[in-house]
Amino acid sequence: MTEAHGNDSVVMVPIGVIHSPWHETKGMPIQPSRAGDAVGRVVVKPALVEGLRDLDGFSHIILLYHFHRAPAPRLTVVPFLDTVERGLFSTRAPVRPNPIGLSVVRLERVEGPILHVLGIDVLDGTPLLDIKPHVADFDAPGAERLGWLAEGRRRAAEADDRFKG
Amino acid sequence: MTEAHGNDSVVMVPIGVIHSPWHETKGMPIQPSRAGDAVGRVVVKPALVEGLRDLDGFSHIILLYHFHRAPAPRLTVVPFLDTVERGLFSTRAPVRPNPIGLSVVRLERVEGPILHVLGIDVLDGTPLLDIKPHVADFDAPGAERLGWLAEGRRRAAEADDRFKG
Repeated sequence: MTEAHGNDSVVMVPIGVIHSPWHETKGMPIQPSRAGDAVGRVVVKPALVEGLRDLDGFSHIILLYHFHRAPAPRLTVVPFLDTVERGLFSTRAPVRPNPIGLSVVRLERVEGPILHVLGIDVLDGTPLLDIKPHVADFDAPGAERLGWLAEGRRRAAEADDRFKG
Repeated sequence: MTEAHGNDSVVMVPIGVIHSPWHETKGMPIQPSRAGDAVGRVVVKPALVEGLRDLDGFSHIILLYHFHRAPAPRLTVVPFLDTVERGLFSTRAPVRPNPIGLSVVRLERVEGPILHVLGIDVLDGTPLLDIKPHVADFDAPGAERLGWLAEGRRRAAEADDRFKG
């Protein structure tokens, strides 16, 4: 237990790996909701399999992962869904100070250390950091304001190579 | 850029700190949806303030943070909302291999490096790792199955000291 001065670095060790049909950034769907039926396999390290118990009861799960191919962090980006430079933290771009990605995906079934998921929007080989159950009560508060995305969501939904690693 | 073998550790450095009314785990609301009007201040490091641009357009944001007071990881836990031992990854308990916490909170306003938020459910002094806009299209897929939580959500919603750090 460390004191809370907000500066201690934290070392994360991947708990597994995410397999997907996407081998390069370009053309990859930019969010699970745009990834349709893209099938993924989340493979958890054997030593952690006991931690997957009860997960099969949830229809959706949250994957946290390392944007391992992301270039150096920036403070502003032109997001895929926009044509204007935006503050990084108002976007889901991978070029973040702490390159943690977050995707909500549908859980089809659990098979030992393997989670079969639908709607995967990450690169094949992405290091997995955490899995959480998606709970609408906690995670879907019914947002009313969507910022720049209110316009942007009407735009194309495929990645190009602007954040190519 | 590193090769994708899913084993490289990742060093995260906090981008700021979260202030809340909660100074100990016991009695703290266990999720933002239960934290009602609990007021929090998210203070971002001065060097990163430009990254907050455009965030004020979003009514809800996702905070990722370090569970800095969490005890050692476990593979099963009895969650606050249950009485039965569950697989860790089917819970939101802090005792995770990579102790990353996730809360969706309401953004009231942005004042320089300070985000004023409502519904904060984290300990005062919690190190902040990332901020993302909450986008219902991406993050609220309308889950149909809630696993063990379908029962548990009817139970009490305050933390006790079972994960005391």
